[in-house]
Amino acid sequence: MESNYEVRTDLALEASESLKTKEGHLTGITVQEEKLPDMDAVITKVHIETKNAAKRMGKPVGTYITMEVPGLAEDDTGFHEKISNLLAEQIKELLEKNGSVAEKSIMIVGLGNRAVTADALGPKVIDHLSVTRHILNVYGKEAYSQAVPSISAMEPGVMAKTGIETSEMVAGVVNKTKPDILIVIDALAARSTKRLYTTIQISNTGISPGSGVGNHRNAINEEAMGIPVLAIGIPTVVDAATIVGDACEAWWHESLKEPGPFPEEVRKYFKDLKNMYVTTKEIDEIIECISYTVSEALNSALHGTII
Amino acid sequence: MESNYEVRTDLALEASESLKTKEGHLTGITVQEEKLPDMDAVITKVHIETKNAAKRMGKPVGTYITMEVPGLAEDDTGFHEKISNLLAEQIKELLEKNGSVAEKSIMIVGLGNRAVTADALGPKVIDHLSVTRHILNVYGKEAYSQAVPSISAMEPGVMAKTGIETSEMVAGVVNKTKPDILIVIDALAARSTKRLYTTIQISNTGISPGSGVGNHRNAINEEAMGIPVLAIGIPTVVDAATIVGDACEAWWHESLKEPGPFPEEVRKYFKDLKNMYVTTKEIDEIIECISYTVSEALNSALHGTII
Amino acid sequence: MESNYEVRTDLALEASESLKTKEGHLTGITVQEEKLPDMDAVITKVHIETKNAAKRMGKPVGTYITMEVPGLAEDDTGFHEKISNLLAEQIKELLEKNGSVAEKSIMIVGLGNRAVTADALGPKVIDHLSVTRHILNVYGKEAYSQAVPSISAMEPGVMAKTGIETSEMVAGVVNKTKPDILIVIDALAARSTKRLYTTIQISNTGISPGSGVGNHRNAINEEAMGIPVLAIGIPTVVDAATIVGDACEAWWHESLKEPGPFPEEVRKYFKDLKNMYVTTKEIDEIIECISYTVSEALNSALHGTII
Amino acid sequence: MESNYEVRTDLALEASESLKTKEGHLTGITVQEEKLPDMDAVITKVHIETKNAAKRMGKPVGTYITMEVPGLAEDDTGFHEKISNLLAEQIKELLEKNGSVAEKSIMIVGLGNRAVTADALGPKVIDHLSVTRHILNVYGKEAYSQAVPSISAMEPGVMAKTGIETSEMVAGVVNKTKPDILIVIDALAARSTKRLYTTIQISNTGISPGSGVGNHRNAINEEAMGIPVLAIGIPTVVDAATIVGDACEAWWHESLKEPGPFPEEVRKYFKDLKNMYVTTKEIDEIIECISYTVSEALNSALHGTII
Repeated sequence: MESNYEVRTDLALEASESLKTKEGHLTGITVQEEKLPDMDAVITKVHIETKNAAKRMGKPVGTYITMEVPGLAEDDTGFHEKISNLLAEQIKELLEKNGSVAEKSIMIVGLGNRAVTADALGPKVIDHLSVTRHILNVYGKEAYSQAVPSISAMEPGVMAKTGIETSEMVAGVVNKTKPDILIVIDALAARSTKRLYTTIQISNTGISPGSGVGNHRNAINEEAMGIPVLAIGIPTVVDAATIVGDACEAWWHESLKEPGPFPEEVRKYFKDLKNMYVTTKEIDEIIECISYTVSEALNSALHGTII
Repeated sequence: MESNYEVRTDLALEASESLKTKEGHLTGITVQEEKLPDMDAVITKVHIETKNAAKRMGKPVGTYITMEVPGLAEDDTGFHEKISNLLAEQIKELLEKNGSVAEKSIMIVGLGNRAVTADALGPKVIDHLSVTRHILNVYGKEAYSQAVPSISAMEPGVMAKTGIETSEMVAGVVNKTKPDILIVIDALAARSTKRLYTTIQISNTGISPGSGVGNHRNAINEEAMGIPVLAIGIPTVVDAATIVGDACEAWWHESLKEPGPFPEEVRKYFKDLKNMYVTTKEIDEIIECISYTVSEALNSALHGTII
Repeated sequence: MESNYEVRTDLALEASESLKTKEGHLTGITVQEEKLPDMDAVITKVHIETKNAAKRMGKPVGTYITMEVPGLAEDDTGFHEKISNLLAEQIKELLEKNGSVAEKSIMIVGLGNRAVTADALGPKVIDHLSVTRHILNVYGKEAYSQAVPSISAMEPGVMAKTGIETSEMVAGVVNKTKPDILIVIDALAARSTKRLYTTIQISNTGISPGSGVGNHRNAINEEAMGIPVLAIGIPTVVDAATIVGDACEAWWHESLKEPGPFPEEVRKYFKDLKNMYVTTKEIDEIIECISYTVSEALNSALHGTII
Repeated sequence: MESNYEVRTDLALEASESLKTKEGHLTGITVQEEKLPDMDAVITKVHIETKNAAKRMGKPVGTYITMEVPGLAEDDTGFHEKISNLLAEQIKELLEKNGSVAEKSIMIVGLGNRAVTADALGPKVIDHLSVTRHILNVYGKEAYSQAVPSISAMEPGVMAKTGIETSEMVAGVVNKTKPDILIVIDALAARSTKRLYTTIQISNTGISPGSGVGNHRNAINEEAMGIPVLAIGIPTVVDAATIVGDACEAWWHESLKEPGPFPEEVRKYFKDLKNMYVTTKEIDEIIECISYTVSEALNSALHGTII
């Protein structure tokens, strides 16, 4: 049966789970899982290896590391340091595939709209970064006691406010400042409310059209930018139509063998849910807290121990 | 059949609609509707007249004026002036049941949490009010060119941050400053996404326990405060469990004659939706805009033309 | 010679220094100083003991503890913990003059205007407090693993926005909720730019009319509230007329034996400086950081080690 | 006598006044003044015509239009519309020297730091602009009922947070998106407190190193960007050392024929004033209000009457 509603998730992990059959994962997809019981955390690496698998998944070929940390949204400074270190390790692992970080120049891009709470993760991560490029440019490597990469950052804003595609804005600054690697930060949409503020996805595939809370139109990836692009994302919303559809179908499948298409009365609900999202009342506070954790992870992954 | 999920709405209009039968409204409830085609607006007055009707409705006895204005969230300064005037008229109508406003002292209370976008309506309305009490206290009536009521305002904050029930905080200041009338402003939960930022409810019943986005525990009404309490509310969220339940039941009723209780698989969805709400991405901008409209309506209703 | 300009400082330490003669401090004033070299900090306790001394100082009789910490505005988490602990000790010392804190109920009041950066210290301190009153009221002492005082908090706002004197607003809530002790937090004006964000004043005299960045009209002290009132303040601005006057007089005294009154040309400058203040560009960031340090000190002084 | 302190002003009008002699303005400088009594406003056009004059003035060759409007900071919606229209006329006049605006593509750059109140004018102006470039790119000219220029906008942030010179950030996006004209918005430093929020400077010279509240290091002008650059600036601060120096010298000159250099005691004051500025308590509210007026002026100057 064709789906009655468009399912939306930016998480490769959720996409791979929904395509899993009794026989296991799709051909072209490998999944490794590591449990970290002391943090109540799970790290899953989904490798999409073939174009065919990429098409089925609706995500580009590449590696997607997912950290599931139920305590991510808790207000516990000590625990956030642990998460931050764990995230720093994952970032380093993906970054160092191309050699030592300390000799690279890296630009970090905070995607999203600072004025929209659910979409403000990227801009707020930028607020707490320790950038070095301007200091290295003036004083050279002697400015730091150990090797430090050239780190720069930008907040491109959103097209509705700038009239410029985010990808154009980023490409312009990349062309001018010539970083070796891009890291983009974005707020994501998940399929399940259990993923909200509990999951971090790090991938080496950049950003695809239609992804993120702000729904970017153009890609920010290696093909478009000419340099490797890492993406770090955290789900902050669930698409309302997806969650209602999932609940309805769950009920249906328990009750009927052959559910047909939604009747008109039900389609009406889905139309009203367009551009609606599901989130929690604590979202303002949580975004503030999580953006700090991601900044600290980036500072630690890029600066090492010198900060 | 008993409901499979707890339905939540702060709107008397939605409550009365869901209890309507083919024969019409419940005994003890009268409903008057007025259409304003030039503004594409509808004003409905629901009078809950008996204790029995109040119990069925889950709302206290009193008058509930609902302004439905589809354009309320649009960014159109001219239209907002019209809405503001219309709202001012409704406020005046309820206020003047107790005599001329100009001789009264009135305190306006902005309920909710400024740091939570969906709950910030009340505090933001307070930001734009023209208060007069401190000026009248020092200079007397001569300070103004025409009769003006004594207007004061407060933002009590939320119990999780103050350790004090909102109702205690308000009662303390009422006892000290002795206003004649209270007006409380609050963000509400609606049942349908179509109500979001399109509906204003004005009632003479004050605030009941469990209502508002912030879910107040204690009443702020005439019984508790000793003076008449008007309440102005605008829906900013829909409870996620309510919307999913409504969609599921709609589908079900179209397909089966006798739907039973939710199976376990579906109950799980509802548990995950506890404390989740549905809203739009534009909520930050809309709260900013609507709070201004409500402030202007209050300034106009209380000051008349002198501002 | 009478002063050419009105000198403004909320710091007892600065007031006592300006009244110091070659023979030492004024009669009725005792000053003790303690140096803490590892933190580069100095703690000075000024006791104003007589009404006469109080009149000369322009500050009420009482104890004023001043912590001078040049690193207070630096962005160094480890150092802020140290400052926070040091401040907690001073608060405890003044609080425990009236017996054990754990058996008291304490209300903390954040004075000032959240929307004015230089005046936002008080409201922002409130944001990070751990209040307990509402939990103790429902669950009793068993809710905590060790004895904890009943802690509540309020942000009264400013008279221009509420129409209500801050002291009335506070008195109303004090009458209703009956705390044993008040602690008020406020942004202060210093005489010297060296004091900006480097000095914390803790006193047992409450708040006097005319003090604070917001210039309160009425007192919040034991006489007005009926319970002991501690005040914690940090200078965030210097009055512009004071700083210009001080510089002018310094030059003058170096050059002339008998400087006369300001000529008209100079008085003009002082008129233009009315309601102007001097501060730094970093004020927004510094208020954010310092308010957190004060919150942590209060949490630690009141909760002990349980948080 | 050489000056005892570095005088700082970003306003050409103040610079020209301080160089004025009894004989009139410097050679190479022409000044035209127009009074608008109904708005209590004065428009002054300073043309710096020679390199020599530019050097004496510390400002590049070009036209500087200064609108002095004492009511600019007042909260009066009707008056702000008038100012907005007047500003729109000045902008148009400078823009149209290069032909009709409607056929141009224009990028507006909001300089400064959103997180620093005194420096937030530029970013806040960007928030309220009506951009058109993305709509024209997709739908063509048919999207609008009359000819509209391609309008885009960006907020480059500040070097301390991005590691990238503002001028590099802007140049990168200019190279990529190819606008015909740049308009940069910035908060300025004035010499006199009377200029604060009462003066708007519009020039065709772009931004010079060292100017603006944020003190840009590199130029954003036609030479650097390859396209004409208009600059719109409003003083939000006065440098504290400048104001103290001016007051001291005024007193001095009234009292002594031959004032010498500052003695050590006085120099100490000036050192403490480094990086300090003078402003008013209302700055947060005023920036909010004025940024809106500038946005509206730009919308009106660029869109004509269609908005």
